[in-house]
Amino acid sequence: MKCRRPTPFVSPKVPLSDPEALGEAIREARPMLDKSVKPVVIGDMELIRFKLQKEFAGLLEKTGFPYVTMMLGKSVLSEQHPQFIGLYEGDRSRDYVINRVETSDCILQLGALMTDFNTGGFTTYLEDSKTIRANLRYVKIRHHYYENVYLHDFIIKLTESLTKRDPQTLDIRSASAGCVHRNTIAYLPVETAPVTIKRFFDRMSHFIKKDSIVIAETGVSLFSAAETLMPEGVIFIGQTFYGSIGYTVGATLGACLAVENRPIVLFVGDGAFQVTCQDISTMIRHKLKPIIFLINNDGYTIERAICDRPYNDIQPWYYHKLLEVFGGGIGLEARTEGELEEALKKAESAEELIFIEVHTERFDCPESLLRAGRSMAKTNQLD
Amino acid sequence: MKCRRPTPFVSPKVPLSDPEALGEAIREARPMLDKSVKPVVIGDMELIRFKLQKEFAGLLEKTGFPYVTMMLGKSVLSEQHPQFIGLYEGDRSRDYVINRVETSDCILQLGALMTDFNTGGFTTYLEDSKTIRANLRYVKIRHHYYENVYLHDFIIKLTESLTKRDPQTLDIRSASAGCVHRNTIAYLPVETAPVTIKRFFDRMSHFIKKDSIVIAETGVSLFSAAETLMPEGVIFIGQTFYGSIGYTVGATLGACLAVENRPIVLFVGDGAFQVTCQDISTMIRHKLKPIIFLINNDGYTIERAICDRPYNDIQPWYYHKLLEVFGGGIGLEARTEGELEEALKKAESAEELIFIEVHTERFDCPESLLRAGRSMAKTNQLD
Repeated sequence: MKCRRPTPFVSPKVPLSDPEALGEAIREARPMLDKSVKPVVIGDMELIRFKLQKEFAGLLEKTGFPYVTMMLGKSVLSEQHPQFIGLYEGDRSRDYVINRVETSDCILQLGALMTDFNTGGFTTYLEDSKTIRANLRYVKIRHHYYENVYLHDFIIKLTESLTKRDPQTLDIRSASAGCVHRNTIAYLPVETAPVTIKRFFDRMSHFIKKDSIVIAETGVSLFSAAETLMPEGVIFIGQTFYGSIGYTVGATLGACLAVENRPIVLFVGDGAFQVTCQDISTMIRHKLKPIIFLINNDGYTIERAICDRPYNDIQPWYYHKLLEVFGGGIGLEARTEGELEEALKKAESAEELIFIEVHTERFDCPESLLRAGRSMAKTNQLD
Repeated sequence: MKCRRPTPFVSPKVPLSDPEALGEAIREARPMLDKSVKPVVIGDMELIRFKLQKEFAGLLEKTGFPYVTMMLGKSVLSEQHPQFIGLYEGDRSRDYVINRVETSDCILQLGALMTDFNTGGFTTYLEDSKTIRANLRYVKIRHHYYENVYLHDFIIKLTESLTKRDPQTLDIRSASAGCVHRNTIAYLPVETAPVTIKRFFDRMSHFIKKDSIVIAETGVSLFSAAETLMPEGVIFIGQTFYGSIGYTVGATLGACLAVENRPIVLFVGDGAFQVTCQDISTMIRHKLKPIIFLINNDGYTIERAICDRPYNDIQPWYYHKLLEVFGGGIGLEARTEGELEEALKKAESAEELIFIEVHTERFDCPESLLRAGRSMAKTNQLD
């Protein structure tokens, strides 16, 4: 029984852009941006997948333009970046972000995937006549396409051709002064106060460490973590393609196996967790040490936000006791802010997997999720 | 939001056999069986799926022929039937069964599916020249086929045309006197003796009740339960199509939801159980009351029987504590025959789901599984 030991996958060479098409696209894009009074950049997932972060940072530095990310592109660069103004997800975004993006007179959209979840349920409103959109293999300006113009080349060439703007003129309100949950606001625990989602993620904005991998499950976790300002160097992972529940427990296992010596934090709801709880066992088996926050809000809150029916009820588990079944890690529980502080203290010093079951109210969820719920109910004609 | 309430699926009408083909097939089959000195019948899954048990029983009664079942056909009729001689699964069968079937001078095979698992890894040895094989839509005698001859009609017509044999002449050793685990042998617990697989299933042959649904997971459970003589009226369920592990936990949930007031018993190994453990939570949620035996033998014993490598190791769980996590049912443990008796006593009187974790040695498994393992190792050239 012999088989070849697998070797790393060799990425195919990046092909070269058609130089004439590229030149023409730049010659068209440049004056649009130059003339624009309130330009804005949207950075998304292709910048991450194809490792174009440095090129993207170069363009921002050269121009001084503000930028937003979409959900799939969250944390493409440090969210502490002074030009980062927040997450853009259509009508689920904060008002300032919607307004700043959708009233812009020139939108430069780089590497975006316009799926249902990523577009906030197709509620992004980007006028074609004001938009320059570059994806992996083509550029679209207003209503016409340039083929064989590659994202990498387009960013580089565009950066060369543009000049610096005075940020004072650009209406930039940085995310670190605007995100819902941010460490620029002090957090003082109130011992006996029950944990709420808002306060919990406020606390997390102080708890999450530099260079962490932060993973957030579809639902309350994803919507809240999305609006939590991430520190320098964070990689953010969510299942924003299909919203498949249970994804993040396996994703955490994968991240732990792929990366050593980085703090890994998972936020997952009870409903989703029941689908893939076994991955915790595998983490323990491999002595992996993520910090897992299980948000126990008694069922499918994201679904309740759309339409609250009995199918959103689930069997209530004593989640933190799973660790005893699986034979490793530390299982804790928190119902009050005081208990949460104690659990976090233990997490800070632990040398093994930490699982903290955080109890919140059934309907406690961020405004962005309520908006999403209302909009989905409307789409599905559930009244 | 309206949708039609689902109604039961209406089975299509059974078409009629081609009367001339049917007549010709009967005229050919009858003298073969009449002349045969040691006929034997193999009954399998199509008899169950297409509800032909009564017709099958009629044929056996009329002729007095002995019969075997294959794994997928197990418990097609009561295993207490005096003409039932046991389970036929190629070289995994007991010696008497192999011998009685494979030296027969006329084999009547009804409704069989010749898959890998069902044929004991293609080790059934049935000479075409001695075999009459009927399946749902055709009959094969020796090397030729009759099309449009339906199983139902063929059994009925054949039964009409055959006459009773003197069972004394037929070499019939009934399974109730031959099965590995049977309630015709007394079982007396030895308080302090560690539980072994052999003794456990001996005990089960006394414990399983009339009209139970018995479900056995691929592995030690299936191989052992297969050679456990089932009482009157038992329905036996295994995943003998593909051997997909984890199947039986969901199958138990399904059986419990489908049937009320029948005892439901599951035998499942630790390796398979880890795949689908959540179904226990759903059983608790719906107040279902199966008796579940979790055979904890520290990993994939069926795979160890083929080739013992580290990939057969799994994270050891405290399985019976899962019930505390899921919030219902009774979780028990047994390492000795005495502890097993105590647990069974609790199970007898319990009004809720019972989960008994039975600890056995890692390599403790039935002879049939060892044979299967050796044969698979050979097929896969693992030495």
